[in-house]
Amino acid sequence: MRPRILLVECSDRPGLVHDITGILFRRGVNVVGNHEFVDRSLGRFFMRTEFDGTVDEAAVTQELSAVLPESATLRLIRPNPKRIVVLASKEHHCLADILVRHAFGELNASIAGVLSNHATLEPLVRRFGLPFHHIPVAGEDRTGQEAAVRDRVLELGPDYLVLAKYMRILSPEFVREFPARIINIHHSFLPAFVGARPYHQAFERGVKVIGATAHFVTDELDAGPILVQQVIPVDHSHDAEELARSGRDVEQMVLARALRLVFEDRVFLCGNRTVIFD
Amino acid sequence: MRPRILLVECSDRPGLVHDITGILFRRGVNVVGNHEFVDRSLGRFFMRTEFDGTVDEAAVTQELSAVLPESATLRLIRPNPKRIVVLASKEHHCLADILVRHAFGELNASIAGVLSNHATLEPLVRRFGLPFHHIPVAGEDRTGQEAAVRDRVLELGPDYLVLAKYMRILSPEFVREFPARIINIHHSFLPAFVGARPYHQAFERGVKVIGATAHFVTDELDAGPILVQQVIPVDHSHDAEELARSGRDVEQMVLARALRLVFEDRVFLCGNRTVIFD
Amino acid sequence: MRPRILLVECSDRPGLVHDITGILFRRGVNVVGNHEFVDRSLGRFFMRTEFDGTVDEAAVTQELSAVLPESATLRLIRPNPKRIVVLASKEHHCLADILVRHAFGELNASIAGVLSNHATLEPLVRRFGLPFHHIPVAGEDRTGQEAAVRDRVLELGPDYLVLAKYMRILSPEFVREFPARIINIHHSFLPAFVGARPYHQAFERGVKVIGATAHFVTDELDAGPILVQQVIPVDHSHDAEELARSGRDVEQMVLARALRLVFEDRVFLCGNRTVIFD
Amino acid sequence: MRPRILLVECSDRPGLVHDITGILFRRGVNVVGNHEFVDRSLGRFFMRTEFDGTVDEAAVTQELSAVLPESATLRLIRPNPKRIVVLASKEHHCLADILVRHAFGELNASIAGVLSNHATLEPLVRRFGLPFHHIPVAGEDRTGQEAAVRDRVLELGPDYLVLAKYMRILSPEFVREFPARIINIHHSFLPAFVGARPYHQAFERGVKVIGATAHFVTDELDAGPILVQQVIPVDHSHDAEELARSGRDVEQMVLARALRLVFEDRVFLCGNRTVIFD
Repeated sequence: MRPRILLVECSDRPGLVHDITGILFRRGVNVVGNHEFVDRSLGRFFMRTEFDGTVDEAAVTQELSAVLPESATLRLIRPNPKRIVVLASKEHHCLADILVRHAFGELNASIAGVLSNHATLEPLVRRFGLPFHHIPVAGEDRTGQEAAVRDRVLELGPDYLVLAKYMRILSPEFVREFPARIINIHHSFLPAFVGARPYHQAFERGVKVIGATAHFVTDELDAGPILVQQVIPVDHSHDAEELARSGRDVEQMVLARALRLVFEDRVFLCGNRTVIFD
Repeated sequence: MRPRILLVECSDRPGLVHDITGILFRRGVNVVGNHEFVDRSLGRFFMRTEFDGTVDEAAVTQELSAVLPESATLRLIRPNPKRIVVLASKEHHCLADILVRHAFGELNASIAGVLSNHATLEPLVRRFGLPFHHIPVAGEDRTGQEAAVRDRVLELGPDYLVLAKYMRILSPEFVREFPARIINIHHSFLPAFVGARPYHQAFERGVKVIGATAHFVTDELDAGPILVQQVIPVDHSHDAEELARSGRDVEQMVLARALRLVFEDRVFLCGNRTVIFD
Repeated sequence: MRPRILLVECSDRPGLVHDITGILFRRGVNVVGNHEFVDRSLGRFFMRTEFDGTVDEAAVTQELSAVLPESATLRLIRPNPKRIVVLASKEHHCLADILVRHAFGELNASIAGVLSNHATLEPLVRRFGLPFHHIPVAGEDRTGQEAAVRDRVLELGPDYLVLAKYMRILSPEFVREFPARIINIHHSFLPAFVGARPYHQAFERGVKVIGATAHFVTDELDAGPILVQQVIPVDHSHDAEELARSGRDVEQMVLARALRLVFEDRVFLCGNRTVIFD
Repeated sequence: MRPRILLVECSDRPGLVHDITGILFRRGVNVVGNHEFVDRSLGRFFMRTEFDGTVDEAAVTQELSAVLPESATLRLIRPNPKRIVVLASKEHHCLADILVRHAFGELNASIAGVLSNHATLEPLVRRFGLPFHHIPVAGEDRTGQEAAVRDRVLELGPDYLVLAKYMRILSPEFVREFPARIINIHHSFLPAFVGARPYHQAFERGVKVIGATAHFVTDELDAGPILVQQVIPVDHSHDAEELARSGRDVEQMVLARALRLVFEDRVFLCGNRTVIFD
């Protein structure tokens, strides 16, 4: 049996680690991994503990709640696979990577469905025997398409939405319905090159390194909490198209890593930043 | 004797490489290294050739001019050390690195003097037996200080000005006097975090990678042609101060690499981008 | 139409670039990219030229042969997709990446078949509609299995064999039959950790960085010319299994990059080293 | 006042974190940072805790000893600067970096002296006002030189010896006298290229990445516990000399980082591996 996970977030005070580990210890569980972090700027305490052994979850939760500050967030979870919906457009690389990992049980998530504003990737998704939902934009009716996407997502009931190069901007209303539950891959080293065509922007600016950023989506474009960033060196011989080609491998790797961290419950939010215990 | 260097930049046309190498070949020199690049977006041709052997420089230049497009830029140089002036403020790491490389003949440049708006680094510069010029800002008189800096620079007559963490913004007038001759190290991965306190900006944004950028200074702040960029990974446990500390090693390495490239005549400008033959 | 490619390798002498570009120029072709390199230690000249325009290939080849040293290797090619056979065992990640790139026309190669000593990956290959050949090892009969592999490979007639985590060592006799035509991905930063279980070796040694190496296979184990290497940082918290997991993403990326370079005819051999024009 | 540091290493058992934090908590100190790690392969527990506040050190130590396994190693320290002796030969870059950091109070160590088998770097050391001891090798008398080095080291009484490109192999007898107290920078990515002339070995092998390794010295050459490793990409155009030049910047950075980790008491030994809390 895989270890259970205790996640605690609260305002900091002396003795928290001692109190929390004491409750676990007296319950006879075996802690196999433990991370704590205190963000001094906000005075927040974060802790992630993995332990083996059976416990009375309700009782432990109650005991912990009794010693933690009132506003504490406390989760005692079994590391079950998350349920996700993937949104994509025409580019296949991030989606294909997710499908392959899913097919071999490496994603730590089950895919409830793939949604797209284009039909391009339907054959790929079908190869892997998964449901594909084509929800096109009819003329200029962006609102209607988003509403259809929303309905389908709610029907599928995922824990997380993964934007695997979904090239449409979601409205603030949509985003607010899934707080810290939408993960996006942006094809630049944010906050550089927010918005459209980042590789063209990068080429124009003459940068010597390009990158990709996986982040939670918030209602401000490309400004949500960052999960993972990575870069690769480039030079003058790369035009915008070649930057894009080189960048795709990084995008895919960055998104895969972000999904692993989120699906293994390793990520806390701390204001607009993330605390990640890896 | 170190090889001579031929640098050619002009509008592109078929046969340029053949024509240029032909002139060198008929003069009996031995080409030991050759790089060409054509920027398709601008239709510009760039070439850097290293060769051994004595040539009649005037004659070769004339022959080359005869076959190149009229607007061509043509330089036939001996790789002599450049003459530089270094500007610094209070942080020592980039300056110290330059002084050490200079002391051991690794800089490919001779330092005509170090200028600073603070006296902090005078002892360091004196250790290496080099002239230090303290040009403080008197009250709010920024214009006066810059004029004094300018006068001293003109007196020292450098090929290049190196801003080794010089924390003052130079006026457009000053910058225009030294086109493509001022090299700055900016402590962020440009174009992210332009302007002041980039490490604080990076901390606030919660980035997972920080970087440094060496660039030529133009009259738009932190927007000049980029020479070298490099990054290092960081995480939530780094506050702004620790980001700054980690970043210093990268700044130093990036500036050193940019200086090597410029001082070895490996850099061409191509619009606001650089073409670098390394 | 994509540019044609001229590849030249010969002993170095003055004037080679001038002579070669002259022939192309007089034939009226338009050179769109050009790389040369001279390896001083061996006195070898390497050149890769891309050009647009129709030429009489036989005539150009003859003209070039006339001016090049006798032992020169000269290839004038159209950049057609290579034909490849992929060998794999049980691990899917490198093979899956190749299949996805192939499915979307990004591989620059057509897959004639996938061979494996295990049946594990058959379903994956079938998803992509490609032939899978299961050639198991019967008991201890390694020689028989290799002979069967060889027969099937010869039947399929590939330009290149790609070992996508094929966990069997090929005999020197087999390897010699496909000189510089077998590409392997080794899961370590060669020459560190040659041979079996490199991640276990890496864990035991306590390294702080792990890597992967794509190389041509020669008859000495893991000692062939290196094409691409890349690394990622690790720390004490990674056991051998986690090193392997982290390493898989790097392996996949490194192999993909090596295949691109080889299939785009960007690689020369220079003794046991490679010269790569990218 | 800077925080104190508690370092604990012992065989693992349930409840250790709870017990240790309990003692600190009851003593009224404020824990400002805490790291634990359990090495499963060896069943060892490692903990590093930073705390503010005054404690009766003897009492705390006694209390902790009472609850820890008998063989536990326990250190309660004030983060005072270490005392070091630096050994160098002819290359200046690592030594210069150390001298600069020392001069600006960034080294977390005081330099008791610099020892060298050559006089080359004496002027550099004198610039920084530090004692330089030239201990040459007289003819073939390696033993005599090492004995002289040993005597001088013992006289200077350092906590650590730093080999900043000291190009002599220390005898096992010498090394055993300073267990886990000698830090070396090796100019390769160990365990690749053990021994002499690693850049020449790297060139011959045609690697595409070179690196540097900082490690504790043990009586087996280049085989001690690794502290820090880092790499940079290279290509066919780098000969051994250029590899060496590029490598120097990495060596300097890697050694600086290793010294910071050791001098801040962030390193534990775990068999021949290191556990590093950064």
